[in-house]
Amino acid sequence: PKMKLPGQEEFEVSSACENVPTGELENGPGSCLSPDGTSDTDRGDRGVPTDPLLFIQLNELLGWPQALEWRETGRWVLFEEKLEVGAGRWSVPHVPTLALPSLQKLRSLLAEGLVLLDCPAQSFLELVEQVTRVESLSPELRGQLQALLLQRPQHLIQPTGTRPCQGSAHPREASHNEEAPLKEQRQNPLRRKLPPGAEAGAVLAGELGFLVRPLGAFVRLRDPVVLGPLTEVPLPSRFFCLLLGPSTLGRGYHEMGRAMAILLSDRQFQWSVRRASSLHDLLTALDAFLEEVTVLPPGRWDPTARIAPPKCLPSQHKRLLSQLREVKGPSAQHGALAEDRHGHWPHAPSPELQRTGRLFGGLVQDVRRKALWYTSDFLDALHPQCFSAVLYIYLATITNAITFGGLLGEATDGAQGVLESFLGTAVAGAAFCLMAGQPLTILSSTGPVLVFERLLFSFSRDYSLDYLPFRLWVGIWVATFCLALVATEASVLVRYFTRFTEEGFCALISLIFIYDAVGKMLSLTSAYPIQSPGSPAYSCFCQYPDLGGNESQWKKTEPKDRDDISSMDLGLVNASLLPPPECARRGGHPRGPGCHIVPDIAFFSVLLFLTSFLIATALKHVKTSRFFPSVVRKVLGDFSSVLAMLLGCGLDSFLGLATPKLMVPSEFKPTLPGRGWLVSPFGANPWWLSVAAALPALLLSILIFMDQQITAVILNRAEYKLRKGAGFHLDLFCVSVLLLLTSVLGLPWYVSATVISLAHMDSLRRESTACVLGEPRSFLGIREQRLTGLVVFILTGASIFLAPVLKFIPMPVLYGIFLYMGVAAISSIQFTKRVQLLLMPAKHQPDLLLLRHVPLSRVHLFTAIQLACLGLLWIIKSTPAAIIFPLMLLGLVGVRKALEWVFSPQELLWLDELMPEKERNIPEKGLEPEYSLSGDTEDSELMYQPRAPEINISVN
Amino acid sequence: PKMKLPGQEEFEVSSACENVPTGELENGPGSCLSPDGTSDTDRGDRGVPTDPLLFIQLNELLGWPQALEWRETGRWVLFEEKLEVGAGRWSVPHVPTLALPSLQKLRSLLAEGLVLLDCPAQSFLELVEQVTRVESLSPELRGQLQALLLQRPQHLIQPTGTRPCQGSAHPREASHNEEAPLKEQRQNPLRRKLPPGAEAGAVLAGELGFLVRPLGAFVRLRDPVVLGPLTEVPLPSRFFCLLLGPSTLGRGYHEMGRAMAILLSDRQFQWSVRRASSLHDLLTALDAFLEEVTVLPPGRWDPTARIAPPKCLPSQHKRLLSQLREVKGPSAQHGALAEDRHGHWPHAPSPELQRTGRLFGGLVQDVRRKALWYTSDFLDALHPQCFSAVLYIYLATITNAITFGGLLGEATDGAQGVLESFLGTAVAGAAFCLMAGQPLTILSSTGPVLVFERLLFSFSRDYSLDYLPFRLWVGIWVATFCLALVATEASVLVRYFTRFTEEGFCALISLIFIYDAVGKMLSLTSAYPIQSPGSPAYSCFCQYPDLGGNESQWKKTEPKDRDDISSMDLGLVNASLLPPPECARRGGHPRGPGCHIVPDIAFFSVLLFLTSFLIATALKHVKTSRFFPSVVRKVLGDFSSVLAMLLGCGLDSFLGLATPKLMVPSEFKPTLPGRGWLVSPFGANPWWLSVAAALPALLLSILIFMDQQITAVILNRAEYKLRKGAGFHLDLFCVSVLLLLTSVLGLPWYVSATVISLAHMDSLRRESTACVLGEPRSFLGIREQRLTGLVVFILTGASIFLAPVLKFIPMPVLYGIFLYMGVAAISSIQFTKRVQLLLMPAKHQPDLLLLRHVPLSRVHLFTAIQLACLGLLWIIKSTPAAIIFPLMLLGLVGVRKALEWVFSPQELLWLDELMPEKERNIPEKGLEPEYSLSGDTEDSELMYQPRAPEINISVN
Repeated sequence: PKMKLPGQEEFEVSSACENVPTGELENGPGSCLSPDGTSDTDRGDRGVPTDPLLFIQLNELLGWPQALEWRETGRWVLFEEKLEVGAGRWSVPHVPTLALPSLQKLRSLLAEGLVLLDCPAQSFLELVEQVTRVESLSPELRGQLQALLLQRPQHLIQPTGTRPCQGSAHPREASHNEEAPLKEQRQNPLRRKLPPGAEAGAVLAGELGFLVRPLGAFVRLRDPVVLGPLTEVPLPSRFFCLLLGPSTLGRGYHEMGRAMAILLSDRQFQWSVRRASSLHDLLTALDAFLEEVTVLPPGRWDPTARIAPPKCLPSQHKRLLSQLREVKGPSAQHGALAEDRHGHWPHAPSPELQRTGRLFGGLVQDVRRKALWYTSDFLDALHPQCFSAVLYIYLATITNAITFGGLLGEATDGAQGVLESFLGTAVAGAAFCLMAGQPLTILSSTGPVLVFERLLFSFSRDYSLDYLPFRLWVGIWVATFCLALVATEASVLVRYFTRFTEEGFCALISLIFIYDAVGKMLSLTSAYPIQSPGSPAYSCFCQYPDLGGNESQWKKTEPKDRDDISSMDLGLVNASLLPPPECARRGGHPRGPGCHIVPDIAFFSVLLFLTSFLIATALKHVKTSRFFPSVVRKVLGDFSSVLAMLLGCGLDSFLGLATPKLMVPSEFKPTLPGRGWLVSPFGANPWWLSVAAALPALLLSILIFMDQQITAVILNRAEYKLRKGAGFHLDLFCVSVLLLLTSVLGLPWYVSATVISLAHMDSLRRESTACVLGEPRSFLGIREQRLTGLVVFILTGASIFLAPVLKFIPMPVLYGIFLYMGVAAISSIQFTKRVQLLLMPAKHQPDLLLLRHVPLSRVHLFTAIQLACLGLLWIIKSTPAAIIFPLMLLGLVGVRKALEWVFSPQELLWLDELMPEKERNIPEKGLEPEYSLSGDTEDSELMYQPRAPEINISVN
Repeated sequence: PKMKLPGQEEFEVSSACENVPTGELENGPGSCLSPDGTSDTDRGDRGVPTDPLLFIQLNELLGWPQALEWRETGRWVLFEEKLEVGAGRWSVPHVPTLALPSLQKLRSLLAEGLVLLDCPAQSFLELVEQVTRVESLSPELRGQLQALLLQRPQHLIQPTGTRPCQGSAHPREASHNEEAPLKEQRQNPLRRKLPPGAEAGAVLAGELGFLVRPLGAFVRLRDPVVLGPLTEVPLPSRFFCLLLGPSTLGRGYHEMGRAMAILLSDRQFQWSVRRASSLHDLLTALDAFLEEVTVLPPGRWDPTARIAPPKCLPSQHKRLLSQLREVKGPSAQHGALAEDRHGHWPHAPSPELQRTGRLFGGLVQDVRRKALWYTSDFLDALHPQCFSAVLYIYLATITNAITFGGLLGEATDGAQGVLESFLGTAVAGAAFCLMAGQPLTILSSTGPVLVFERLLFSFSRDYSLDYLPFRLWVGIWVATFCLALVATEASVLVRYFTRFTEEGFCALISLIFIYDAVGKMLSLTSAYPIQSPGSPAYSCFCQYPDLGGNESQWKKTEPKDRDDISSMDLGLVNASLLPPPECARRGGHPRGPGCHIVPDIAFFSVLLFLTSFLIATALKHVKTSRFFPSVVRKVLGDFSSVLAMLLGCGLDSFLGLATPKLMVPSEFKPTLPGRGWLVSPFGANPWWLSVAAALPALLLSILIFMDQQITAVILNRAEYKLRKGAGFHLDLFCVSVLLLLTSVLGLPWYVSATVISLAHMDSLRRESTACVLGEPRSFLGIREQRLTGLVVFILTGASIFLAPVLKFIPMPVLYGIFLYMGVAAISSIQFTKRVQLLLMPAKHQPDLLLLRHVPLSRVHLFTAIQLACLGLLWIIKSTPAAIIFPLMLLGLVGVRKALEWVFSPQELLWLDELMPEKERNIPEKGLEPEYSLSGDTEDSELMYQPRAPEINISVN
């Protein structure tokens, strides 16, 4: 190895480091460096992920000439962190920015400097000797330089924050012999965040007055070596870069050092430089980097502003595409692009949704597929994470059981109640977890079914039917219809439920929730009227039954102290001013309009209602705030409704007012007095009602099918990386069997609930433990098993004995939680965002992807059609024909189909999604014109977010 | 002009266009193009602002080969707007991003292409002929090309949104003879947004299959000419650029066109290219641009993501600095940098705060200075903007008068009241506007004075003093002390009130507001107790005075219908169940604990309180939301407290409950019964109290001085660009005279109020009308005059006759507004942000400038000291010695001085600001080390925001 002369343009590699390590031979050195499209594909898909992660550190030489010291001033894994010298902390990770000249200066310094590839040095000392063996240095200077390089650098080890920079106690102590990592290095918390096998790269830069010409050296070590205290984490270093020079460039060396570090932290550059066999390869990689950089013009962007890391990184795939575009022009990319888009497109049907064509064919396949995993479904649960999942989902489940049970009990005059809700949830949930195709699903009372049951009850009341027997027949018919749907593999039709249908479904249910919550709240104020000043409703006194008895007897008790009236009997009348309960206790009758009025309850109920709604909403937002450690935020956000409920109960019991409370039977028996656990098949109903029940059952079947299958599709999306497959048909089969069971026992009906099941999956995420600064954790999959669900429902069953505690829950608090659920559900759909657009002037509208591609008037038209459909549904819901609303919901599919006459496929693609048959035709003819005009890749990949939590269709 | 050969490296300028226009001769062509530091300074400060604004448009050639058409696909003034083809709208303005290769390709195309500088073409036709006179084109191709260039381009004229692209009806119609601008161009709303004198630049780019080699042309017209329908706005075009070529490059021409447009939209490049005399100059300017670009690495940033425009642009000054840094290294910039920082630093003292050293010297100077402007102070008000300012400030003033008047009336048992508040505000305010040094200041009741008056009242009540006479003497003494402060020019001491003092002041007052609002609200619940179920407080009956009269007479009225008790007299007693008011009307006495209880009031008051607080807060936030047009948002935001108050009153009167209301005298006389408008000098007090009043007066003087002068300093900051100068001494003089007057009349005391005065200034801002897309409006100054204030206070005086309407305002609504003011004030100070930091884990903390420069532990220590001071102040405020709290506030200055022993000057500079004597020493020795280490310009200029609205010291 020798120093290059400045003018020397030919590339040359140090002979000592020329041998290629065997591990690298598979790919062949330099085999993919040609800018050829096909080998680029390999490079993107095969090469990048296998290389170890690089941690890059920049050590700067400061204090020339008086007090030379090395200090770590920057570090990179994906994003840059700068040392805030004054504050003694690392900056927030941010997207690194560079000035173009520093990259160019770096290039020329590298071209003229020393490049050692596969250098065999085994220690920092050896490495320093290799690097300083340059012709231009006198032996004396070389010695000085070596001593300087071996000086221990100062690192800032976080998260102490309060401590000053480490190592400042002995800043000049040389550490020649201390090749072993120091204690402070080993204890660095950063180390735990880097994945095993990670390597380090060190860049040393700065001005050194005694040099007469710049000294640049780039080293790739053959075997990565821990270079003593050089890097703040004791990782084996693979790359080493030295950029020193006389003081002419000022902060230029700092910027060149940053440029080198940023280059090394680029995956593509890393890939190339790991395989480079000559200086030429190195410079080619640098030029390839330059080709791809994004340039921001001066004057429009302050170069010192820090850009926050984007939510998701541009994929290698996308980067490849932009290279393709450069090389081959726009026509080359269409295939790849369509594929790219499809991968991100949310509603791609699962392979499980392919029709087999045989009766029960789907069900049989589901059973076969899931049987293979049955043992592992229990073994895979042996992980501590499952404990917290159980706790979390248990709390969510009983909150749900209380809320829905309480409201259902009220709506059905006790035909269902909290006790039934607990029992039913436990039985149905546990059975589903044992049998279902997708055991991660949590069965629960959901909004649509609750709404239907309420309508069914009021229908049967209007016609004086015996509710529970009637309901049993409805259940029997629904189970039959659902089995027919399983037999005919109807689940594959779920693809016709586009976002348009889902949003109509969700919006209607949410609005019913909101309307009901507010309506019930207002009905409380008529039950507990407000006393206005002039109303005669003030008075109440206590009258004893023996009015008209012995007058002389009463005269004796003539009042002495006229002001202390409450404590005495009124002398002349057989009456007192005792409060009503006390009066009744003493055998009197409370008389007067004031006796029936409980003051203050109305407004206090309103306060409780608002408080629980606002607290639940506020706690939900804590999750995304900056306050508190992540764990605390997560707990507060996840348990927002439980906490809001507890707070409401606390406030209520603190004031001790007679607010209406949740009704809970005092012992373990059905809420409705006088019925057993089994529902009699006919009761007081005529026999033909068992046949007529088929009609409402048809409607309920539609509802259950829609609710169950849309949820199932959302849960089985590709982005959750489920390994064990879905079981759409098996799930529907289980739901229909359980429906039959709960009808017989007079328990509520259950289907899969979206939000709580998503929460279940979320609490079982497997993620890479190494979370690199600023990088989102990489998602590995879900712990798919049956045990957490099973335990949750066993606990729910055991909680039935907690039921007596529930009678302290005031109803207004439940209404508040109900309102919160409705508002949260309706806020989560895109439809709401589009309705909001109606209120925004065009120039203040957010930069939504759909607004880039669809004219605003068309967006508004689509929203208006949705609003009209919703209005129609609402009108139907308000008429006596309310019970047919499931049919109308299904009618949305027809409306959506008709929209194809109004909107172009492109517009529907952005506003909604495509229906199955259209989807196949589009890529060839439908989308091309727009692509070729606007070049399409203009859209940032950031905007193609998975849609998972957007649809809260089940409102729970 | 002739086509350059590809290999030709020498630069050459077309001879036809060589003569330099006379208007350009002053600067001399190319005189500043050398990269020399000193002439760069001229360039930054002198050259840039005088050039007209450029509107750049990119017309792309689309549809090769079937249907060629020109379409405008991008436009630039400062930021880029793209045509969203699918949506038919312009994108949100964003920071343009480029790929480096397109800039390099553009450079080589320009180097080989045709460059015409100062081309004399007078029409588009002539221009097209000049541009196409290239050797490489055959006459036939030339004709084709000319016809193509003359084809009318399609523009998207916003804000139609619904219409398809304009001109599509006749897309191929050539417009040779239509050099006059089209109707659609003249009606373009964009035209009004561009300042007069703006010029256009057109870039035409695209692929054209019949060309065999790329065709590049850059033209600078000698005289700007309207080029027919070429640009969407009919501005005279100065620059024209043509980039056409065969289809080999694909979208390369589009990107090169964008690169050219971005270059032309850069102010520095514009400056150079306007003065370029050769191709060499042009390329040098391009290279200078490249030197300054910011580079984002690929893989870390998606190049297609759109970056929102920064809140403020990097100044030319800053850009110059970064050039200096490049050229001269870090040492060269320190002087300029310190100056730069100082300009942004908020608390730089006004020149009016220099001490003259003579008795009343400052006052005399103030009077002299302001007398010059007195006539213009009325003439300058003749502008329609002043009408809306009057309306706005009038509403704010009476809201303030009602709130503070109501609370003061309650606190002083009617010694002050709403009527006094209206009268006093009108008299004092109008007089101040006529006499004051800074007539933009609005006098008002402020938090600190309100707190002091409350303490003074409770003190005088504790010692059974006659309040108003005592208060008169306090006022006389305060006026005396303040005159002494004017005489000694004490106002210059205001510089010792750093942010530490201001924050302590503001936080204490805000906390008192919050505490009082909640406290008063809770005291309402004891005045209107809540009836819990078992309480005996239910009953009330009506007793007639002639109890014990003729028994036989009563027997006759024995009840017939026992349930209808309210309507009958009770047979045996001389009593009835009439409601209390009705009972009293009939001559009876309501008896029983229930008679004194008005139910529902307590909770309804809490509801009103919360509602008005939440609505005021929510409406304030509407101002920064995306909803509604700006005007509506501004009205909702600005009048949030008025609207909240109105809503509260509406809710209250809708339900018609007997909530406690604001007390207003029914006629025009003092609220306190039996006093005249003049306060008698002694009343029932001993004579020596007039001397003893000097003690509380001293405390009040401190308070008034601090409140008045801190507000005055904030209002007279340099960033408001006031031309007529401040009058600190004159203002204090006026305040003390008015204090005397209001004491004599028994009216509240007034000082300048920060927030309302800032709102006044804000409503009188003069701004550049031309608001270029994405650019903030440039601020020209304030309409400084006396008339708006005067009219506001005349209107306030007239509103005294509206007073009877005010008795419908419920007190809980006022408490809610009071709470809102306190919360808004305490949220606005940096101290609160630092307290929040205590609750945030380090990695979630926002990227505050101070956190970059001060260790977190030091920040927390500073916050803890402030919290301790605040706690101490609160304790003092809660003891009988509460009245001395102004002295303690002054004590904060001493604490701040002592902090210099604990914190380094750098730390104090970031956490607080420097005291006068320290400030002078710092730039030389104190700050250098940090700068030289971290390079300082690392901090984005974006973070040096003016601090104006941050301090709400007066809590109003």
